[in-house]
Amino acid sequence: MALSPASNLGPAVGLICRECGTAAELGPRYACDQCFGPLEIEYRFTRTEGAHPEITRASIEAGPRNIWRYRGLLPVPDQVAETPNTEPGFTRLVRADQLAESLGMSRLWVKDDSGNPTHSFKDRVVAVALAAARELGFKVLACPSTGNLANAVAAAAARAGIRSAVFVPSNLESQKIITTAVYGGTFVTVDGNYDDVNRLASEIAGEQEDWAFVNVNVRPYYAEGSKTLGYEIAEQLGWRLPDQIVVPVASGSQLTKIDKAFQEFIKLGLVEDRPYKVFGAQATGCSPVAAAFKGGHDVVRPVKPDTLAKSLAIGNPADGPYVLDVVRRTGGAVEDIDDAEVVEGIRLLARTEGIFGETAGGVTVGCLSKLVRTGQLDPEAETVIINSGDGLKTLDAVAPVVGPSANIAPSLEAFRAAGLA
Amino acid sequence: MALSPASNLGPAVGLICRECGTAAELGPRYACDQCFGPLEIEYRFTRTEGAHPEITRASIEAGPRNIWRYRGLLPVPDQVAETPNTEPGFTRLVRADQLAESLGMSRLWVKDDSGNPTHSFKDRVVAVALAAARELGFKVLACPSTGNLANAVAAAAARAGIRSAVFVPSNLESQKIITTAVYGGTFVTVDGNYDDVNRLASEIAGEQEDWAFVNVNVRPYYAEGSKTLGYEIAEQLGWRLPDQIVVPVASGSQLTKIDKAFQEFIKLGLVEDRPYKVFGAQATGCSPVAAAFKGGHDVVRPVKPDTLAKSLAIGNPADGPYVLDVVRRTGGAVEDIDDAEVVEGIRLLARTEGIFGETAGGVTVGCLSKLVRTGQLDPEAETVIINSGDGLKTLDAVAPVVGPSANIAPSLEAFRAAGLA
Ligand SMILES: Cc1ncc(COP(=O)(O)O)c(C=O)c1O
Ligand SMILES: Cc1ncc(COP(=O)(O)O)c(C=O)c1O
Ligand SMILES: [Zn+2]
Ligand SMILES: [Zn+2]
Repeated sequence: MALSPASNLGPAVGLICRECGTAAELGPRYACDQCFGPLEIEYRFTRTEGAHPEITRASIEAGPRNIWRYRGLLPVPDQVAETPNTEPGFTRLVRADQLAESLGMSRLWVKDDSGNPTHSFKDRVVAVALAAARELGFKVLACPSTGNLANAVAAAAARAGIRSAVFVPSNLESQKIITTAVYGGTFVTVDGNYDDVNRLASEIAGEQEDWAFVNVNVRPYYAEGSKTLGYEIAEQLGWRLPDQIVVPVASGSQLTKIDKAFQEFIKLGLVEDRPYKVFGAQATGCSPVAAAFKGGHDVVRPVKPDTLAKSLAIGNPADGPYVLDVVRRTGGAVEDIDDAEVVEGIRLLARTEGIFGETAGGVTVGCLSKLVRTGQLDPEAETVIINSGDGLKTLDAVAPVVGPSANIAPSLEAFRAAGLA
Repeated sequence: MALSPASNLGPAVGLICRECGTAAELGPRYACDQCFGPLEIEYRFTRTEGAHPEITRASIEAGPRNIWRYRGLLPVPDQVAETPNTEPGFTRLVRADQLAESLGMSRLWVKDDSGNPTHSFKDRVVAVALAAARELGFKVLACPSTGNLANAVAAAAARAGIRSAVFVPSNLESQKIITTAVYGGTFVTVDGNYDDVNRLASEIAGEQEDWAFVNVNVRPYYAEGSKTLGYEIAEQLGWRLPDQIVVPVASGSQLTKIDKAFQEFIKLGLVEDRPYKVFGAQATGCSPVAAAFKGGHDVVRPVKPDTLAKSLAIGNPADGPYVLDVVRRTGGAVEDIDDAEVVEGIRLLARTEGIFGETAGGVTVGCLSKLVRTGQLDPEAETVIINSGDGLKTLDAVAPVVGPSANIAPSLEAFRAAGLA
């Protein structure tokens, strides 16, 4: 399959190997011919002239209220917003004064990505992958997944009127099975763990020429979708960067792309160039990047995940080394917390800010707390944390520890006797 | 409890009885002194001068990306956006070409309110109730609920840093118990059905002077929050009204307030004054308003609900007669469908548009289909339907009918043998 001359990938001009720097032509590629390193998109952004719209604060603000306001910075066609898609993004950035107070911090914000169409940040990456996959000539939108990505791919494909093919481990919670199956694509449960499913997906990708596995063979395009989290945070803060940001880490893609977004905004003159620190958050039961950071290693040693935070349970994170680069370059850190602290993080966010995040959100809040307690994060500096998914998808995590205050008979006497007034 | 002179309820100037027209002073009242009829807010809107901001398309567009852009049309203080709140609203309005095609329609839109903070339109009404309750001097945010309202009240109170007190039937699904309990307020399960819980709430409201039961003693304020659905639809269509709109009906409040919003926009000159038709949607197992409409009655005879669509299961709808007024005045209708059609409606919306609605959404889609089939709704005219809640909260409705396409071993051979390529 080759890139047709009619393709339009906006400001993207090529691919480049993140390991050896070898350039490759734009197309349905994801690994370097020379070293098998991961490929990344190269852009030519135009501020004043050229084929693509000039990128200014005003041009962005005039765009749609979703990720497509940043289409001039993504590998997608200019007309992307007019093709049926789930219209993710522009989720709320809320000032979190009560959470801040409970942690002894001064200025804290939560970027709440549970407001996306299928309630996780995955809608962003899938929307970009879908738009690029169409241009690249793919016909089926596919993925291996443990849940959030499955929901996002099945929904996006349904809305776009194309076929989806989603592969998940067969021991997945029935809730995640239902929320994917309802969209009606091809949906396969596989007797194996996520690593088995992932390997199978790569093998199928090798056979099925027109299947775009979003996180496998169109990963360079897909990953760029996470940049929109960084763009939105900067725009919603009034076109400026926070001092510190805490991001959950599974493969590590989201964290590195938020950094990339900040760097692009600086280069384009959309925000002031000032230092910021990027922090990564993991659950101890799957913390290969935190272990490498703490051990001072450049290499991330794979682990076998054992944590409640299933959406972050990637034992061999593709972008782990790049996370280490970003965190070290900016003066941040990677921290990890145990499962009890994950649950406490979910509850603290819910009780202080009325935001019910999934386990990944609990990891982020819990790590924020630990970073403050251990003096790694400045409690006085302005901080943003990401809530990347929804508590409704991981109810089992909190079910054992939350419940009603009382059960009463339907009478005023019973109410009075319960002592709740 | 009286309204303090310092209170600020924006453009609201008084209360008026919907039955006998008797005026009452603005304050913590909800029933008419003369006839016990429901009270409604009266406004003085200013287009050119006066205490409140001039209301123009530009002034609204310059506001925040949530319901507070319409604060000049709601009984809330001008500074409402600066007080911690869940920031609901401005959910996506998506063009639904595939759903339209499957129903033989031309121009169809879905207003997807599952994107709200707790994933239902209840976040809108609760945000307005909270803002007004504060001005009225209440200290606790309370409600009787069957689920969505419980989530919204508990989350909004947590974020605002005030106490919540939520009452639900004790046989509620454990999922809805968890998603309310996680926010940490007072949460009481009551041995009884929703009507019992509702009656108990009224009794408690009579004793606890500073408890604002959002849907009981501050209902006039609360109900106004649904107007924002109508405002947003008109603004998102490019400042014009649709020809037809289909709205789910439980108490009937949402439907009447969407009509009120359209009427206000016409009066303020924000949209062209042209005819539109309002349609109501119910599940047959709880369809007192549809029965009255079809029977040509003015009075709605209460029923005992028996339907899968629990969020719409109000057998004695407070606003039923006003729904009949709106529907008859505009030339619409009220339709109902059975539970199997509700499930089919959920699936159809998911498969054609990638939107997973709750049972109320299934009712709306199913009724749309029936209204078209029976010639009551013009398939050529531009139509908007409301998806008011989230499928993740009513998984049991679709669990029996959706599932994986296949279960395979983790090998290419197994994949090939399954015949899914
Ligand atoms: C909810 C949620 N948050 C965060 C992540 C981490 O993303 P990444 O793999 O880009 O590090 C995931 C990954 O699946 C996720 O599902
Ligand atoms: C999801 C959902 N949609 C619609 C409604 C109907 O609202 P109303 O009582 O205003 O008619 C409800 C009411 O609880 C609801 O929860
Ligand atoms: Zn290389
Ligand atoms: Zn009266």
